Amino acid sequence: MSPLPVRIGLIGAGRIGASHADVIARRVPEATLVAVADPRPAAAAAVATPLGARGETSVEAVLAADDVDAVVIAASSTAHAALTIAAADAAKHVFSEKPAGMSLAELRAARSATAAAGVVFQVGFNRRFAREFVDAHEAIASGRLGTVRQLRSLTRDPGRGPADPDAVPEWTIFTQTLIHDFDTLNWLNHGARPVDVIATADSLTAPGHPTLLDHANVVIRYDNGAIATAEASFAAAYGYDVRGEVLGSEGMVTMGDGAQSSLRLHDVRGRLATTSHSDTELLIDAYTAEFTEFARAVQEGRDPSVTGDDAIAAFAIATACIDSSRSGVRTAVPEEA
Amino acid sequence: MSPLPVRIGLIGAGRIGASHADVIARRVPEATLVAVADPRPAAAAAVATPLGARGETSVEAVLAADDVDAVVIAASSTAHAALTIAAADAAKHVFSEKPAGMSLAELRAARSATAAAGVVFQVGFNRRFAREFVDAHEAIASGRLGTVRQLRSLTRDPGRGPADPDAVPEWTIFTQTLIHDFDTLNWLNHGARPVDVIATADSLTAPGHPTLLDHANVVIRYDNGAIATAEASFAAAYGYDVRGEVLGSEGMVTMGDGAQSSLRLHDVRGRLATTSHSDTELLIDAYTAEFTEFARAVQEGRDPSVTGDDAIAAFAIATACIDSSRSGVRTAVPEEA
Amino acid sequence: MSPLPVRIGLIGAGRIGASHADVIARRVPEATLVAVADPRPAAAAAVATPLGARGETSVEAVLAADDVDAVVIAASSTAHAALTIAAADAAKHVFSEKPAGMSLAELRAARSATAAAGVVFQVGFNRRFAREFVDAHEAIASGRLGTVRQLRSLTRDPGRGPADPDAVPEWTIFTQTLIHDFDTLNWLNHGARPVDVIATADSLTAPGHPTLLDHANVVIRYDNGAIATAEASFAAAYGYDVRGEVLGSEGMVTMGDGAQSSLRLHDVRGRLATTSHSDTELLIDAYTAEFTEFARAVQEGRDPSVTGDDAIAAFAIATACIDSSRSGVRTAVPEEA
Amino acid sequence: MSPLPVRIGLIGAGRIGASHADVIARRVPEATLVAVADPRPAAAAAVATPLGARGETSVEAVLAADDVDAVVIAASSTAHAALTIAAADAAKHVFSEKPAGMSLAELRAARSATAAAGVVFQVGFNRRFAREFVDAHEAIASGRLGTVRQLRSLTRDPGRGPADPDAVPEWTIFTQTLIHDFDTLNWLNHGARPVDVIATADSLTAPGHPTLLDHANVVIRYDNGAIATAEASFAAAYGYDVRGEVLGSEGMVTMGDGAQSSLRLHDVRGRLATTSHSDTELLIDAYTAEFTEFARAVQEGRDPSVTGDDAIAAFAIATACIDSSRSGVRTAVPEEA
Repeated sequence: MSPLPVRIGLIGAGRIGASHADVIARRVPEATLVAVADPRPAAAAAVATPLGARGETSVEAVLAADDVDAVVIAASSTAHAALTIAAADAAKHVFSEKPAGMSLAELRAARSATAAAGVVFQVGFNRRFAREFVDAHEAIASGRLGTVRQLRSLTRDPGRGPADPDAVPEWTIFTQTLIHDFDTLNWLNHGARPVDVIATADSLTAPGHPTLLDHANVVIRYDNGAIATAEASFAAAYGYDVRGEVLGSEGMVTMGDGAQSSLRLHDVRGRLATTSHSDTELLIDAYTAEFTEFARAVQEGRDPSVTGDDAIAAFAIATACIDSSRSGVRTAVPEEA
Repeated sequence: MSPLPVRIGLIGAGRIGASHADVIARRVPEATLVAVADPRPAAAAAVATPLGARGETSVEAVLAADDVDAVVIAASSTAHAALTIAAADAAKHVFSEKPAGMSLAELRAARSATAAAGVVFQVGFNRRFAREFVDAHEAIASGRLGTVRQLRSLTRDPGRGPADPDAVPEWTIFTQTLIHDFDTLNWLNHGARPVDVIATADSLTAPGHPTLLDHANVVIRYDNGAIATAEASFAAAYGYDVRGEVLGSEGMVTMGDGAQSSLRLHDVRGRLATTSHSDTELLIDAYTAEFTEFARAVQEGRDPSVTGDDAIAAFAIATACIDSSRSGVRTAVPEEA
Repeated sequence: MSPLPVRIGLIGAGRIGASHADVIARRVPEATLVAVADPRPAAAAAVATPLGARGETSVEAVLAADDVDAVVIAASSTAHAALTIAAADAAKHVFSEKPAGMSLAELRAARSATAAAGVVFQVGFNRRFAREFVDAHEAIASGRLGTVRQLRSLTRDPGRGPADPDAVPEWTIFTQTLIHDFDTLNWLNHGARPVDVIATADSLTAPGHPTLLDHANVVIRYDNGAIATAEASFAAAYGYDVRGEVLGSEGMVTMGDGAQSSLRLHDVRGRLATTSHSDTELLIDAYTAEFTEFARAVQEGRDPSVTGDDAIAAFAIATACIDSSRSGVRTAVPEEA
Repeated sequence: MSPLPVRIGLIGAGRIGASHADVIARRVPEATLVAVADPRPAAAAAVATPLGARGETSVEAVLAADDVDAVVIAASSTAHAALTIAAADAAKHVFSEKPAGMSLAELRAARSATAAAGVVFQVGFNRRFAREFVDAHEAIASGRLGTVRQLRSLTRDPGRGPADPDAVPEWTIFTQTLIHDFDTLNWLNHGARPVDVIATADSLTAPGHPTLLDHANVVIRYDNGAIATAEASFAAAYGYDVRGEVLGSEGMVTMGDGAQSSLRLHDVRGRLATTSHSDTELLIDAYTAEFTEFARAVQEGRDPSVTGDDAIAAFAIATACIDSSRSGVRTAVPEEA
């Protein structure tokens, strides 16, 4: 007999929250969506009702509910750590969207709180669950690529850049976007520690904007000698672009091509592959796999494959990038205990 | 509120039955797997129990069960039509694996019985639910390709050919394998009727075998002038291969590349894409989509997108192929009312 | 010291003749273009002069010239055999565009004449010199693919079909277009003999036209059991399309993707590869290689890698296709001594 | 009538010299190879004789020869500038392999000497002549990509790294390898000036080696805001790898896939594309095009499309990289008049 599904309360009914609700309810039999909390009652209901869950306007109601085993936090990034701690205090398991906190201090507090409460704490580094990245990781871990020497991880958001640059919190490109790439690089270059970074970033969609950084290239040196580049843009006209590349002494893996399917349309212009224009489309199997992992970790009472430690390790690189951006020089990645 | 999930009884716990059980239980929230019937009790239990369903040894028990709304037939092909009719008589909705019958007479009887009972009757032409084929169909239906002129549909089973050629029922390549391609071609060349076929087939893995046909090329002429090739092999060393190609007056679509993901491994031999070696891997999203369609058709009380008419239309081509194989000449496709 | 370049007289200054002149003059150091003959003096001069050759209006002048070692025949197909024979009689080596004759009798006469004269006789089956086909042939010949079982060869001409269907000689699709595919299949399925064909062809760009066939699918059975499909269209809106595919017991090779280069342009529509729209662009390296082979065969006094025997073997399939088109039935390929 | 072929004296009969000799003699009708100079008489003869040229042991003999219009310098990099100046003094046109000098001072002297002598001076930035890069440049120059924002250029040499790390001159990765990428980036980001660089480089095939740098990532900021990454490795087990990528406001171009042809071999491991393992194979068409451009510039008495200015602009980035490697900090690219 299979174990009981994990009963999930989702916090945040925005774009990504709505997608997560759908994935949990429809694609993860190990989990049941029971509640969706959002301060806007209509938003909560719009997500919850069609999926057979109840809408709530208060997080407290979800955390107090007896029929909620675990929460999935898809609220504003600035609230992630506090919500994680509150959930841990309520003895709920926690899946937090990345970044799980806005500072290393917040992340450490979240990690401590969940550890003290003995609850599962997983962070939303979805790329670890995408098939091509999983296979790449296995190829590297198996030794098939030899010694890792040069890496690249890239994230480009679809579209024309931020509609309102003022609305983009400072350093978002490092803490919210490249955080995926930092984790991916740490994970693919397994066993190595990032030593320092040099970040190059600018506002190219809104030249001269005082705080917006919409394009960035970060070079990371690891203690095994490997040199990695993390690259991001907020303005990929051609779609949502997630790629990776690892050169080892025995070969190379490349991941990501953006094509929606194997369909190719040939007409007078040439041969066209349509590309994905949203993360929720491109990564739907990865989202499914990460929530499946979360539910199973809860069911099995074990650590998930992506932990608070990973969140801290990736965020440590982001903080070094912020410092490097400010100073213009290579900056050590803070060591984490 | 979403409608109640459709309660499914699966008939047949073989390889494809086990895969279908898993897909229904784990990936189709519109359906619930409640029972799995197989004459071998251990096989039924092995599939049913981990998915929270009950094993049954008799089909009758499933057809009589009050908590079963619909059956999915994944038994031996020779039993498909009789099981469909029995299920219809028991007022159960029916999803039958292809072919839904072993003769046009059987298929007509199954269609009549389900129509008379007012139950949904869907046939397992999974390619209609694979993303690249869906997109191709839309490109064609939208007129973007212009007039359809030349088509190709191909199915190659992985491996080295039948372990025991004597165990392969005569004409299997037409009625079980190419039936997918015949349906795909009918569907992509929408609105056109197949006029005649010429089939070329042989036993190449067991040369001289009296009944085995393990490779076949069929050329079909349609009444809109389009010329189609359907091609099959039972022995693709490189994996399970499903492809399609449609040339229209304005362009071409191609579908299918067999790659498991966008991962490419580059080593001293070159650049390698690993390929799928099983239908249940390559087509898992298509299987999910076809059972979702079935459950929704039941919930909504409507015809599914693939009907008994389609099964008959495809099988009519298969019968013409059998005749053409026997006679060596071009053979008319029987007209169906 | 390298041998002296072979001095070439080109017969025919049409589209393909002009391309051949350029390839010979600019890309084949083993050859020198000395003369270009065309009944239209301006056409001959327009091709010859910029390349440092002389224009001639009479074939006879070229055949009588002491400074011409060999002729390249790119005149009207109906003249190929007679020109070959005349050249042989003048002791000139001969490269003839395909088809080297309009009947088996013509081809045999051309072969006899060149053999009697002791001159090199090569036929323009350029696909044998295209890198991907050469590599495929080697993979097959080396045994890496095992036993050959299923083949496909495809030729699609760019554009919208013949501007004037009446101007297309009857059976052109078999004798001029698919002749390439017939030779390719014979060559890739090395050591096997074509047994019979069934041809399916129609006029789809000019429905109902009394003689035009602009789309054709031919199924060829070989005496090693292999089943081959040759497919052609005169109306590929997306470009000039030349592809091949061979399934063996150990694997498969595929050849041809039409992309002009590795450039991919990604924009809001997706990822675009531009495709070739002319044979003289797509196959320029193959043309270079075939003329290099011709010049070297002349220099070394040996048979070229593509001979009159190959021309006859391919044409034998074309004649069987014509008969099959007329009769509608499978037709034996005439045996050639 | 076409102009007379440019008579070429090649200086240097090493690996790349031998390849250049062959390309010039066999693939560039605008040029004639008349002499090959190398201090090793056997080496000179081995290259010259089969191509109908004469071997020379002294550069002076070539520079003094009346039948030499132009020299192609493929000697040791340290000699490039002095040879260029000597050739200019002898009124010979000059094509120099990259780098055209070992310092900005050398390059300026070479530029001055050739300008003063009124001879053509072209530098061997072959990537500008590779089809995919040419097409990319056109897409960018035409405005189809909008504003250029993020670029990547990559060079990886095939193999396992230097057999003798001590034999690799210091800074080779910047002055000899990445110099290609620097020029490519300057050219693709046309009209923009490189402002500063930060270089990250290490010896990974010979850890701890005092001077070898075998892997490097360079981030370049341009005055139009674009951020570029240049990446190199001396140890690509999978082959010679040359790629580019440009993100603009309207889309992206990618260049380079390393496949030898469109052949794909499918076997039990998957689908394999063989890759090029040498520059002289991968770039043969680019080499042909660059020598054609050189010969035409000489014939037409005009500047070639790649000039000494380009050599200086690329080398300025290399010098900044050397400084950045030493200091560890971002370093301004020296402005060139």
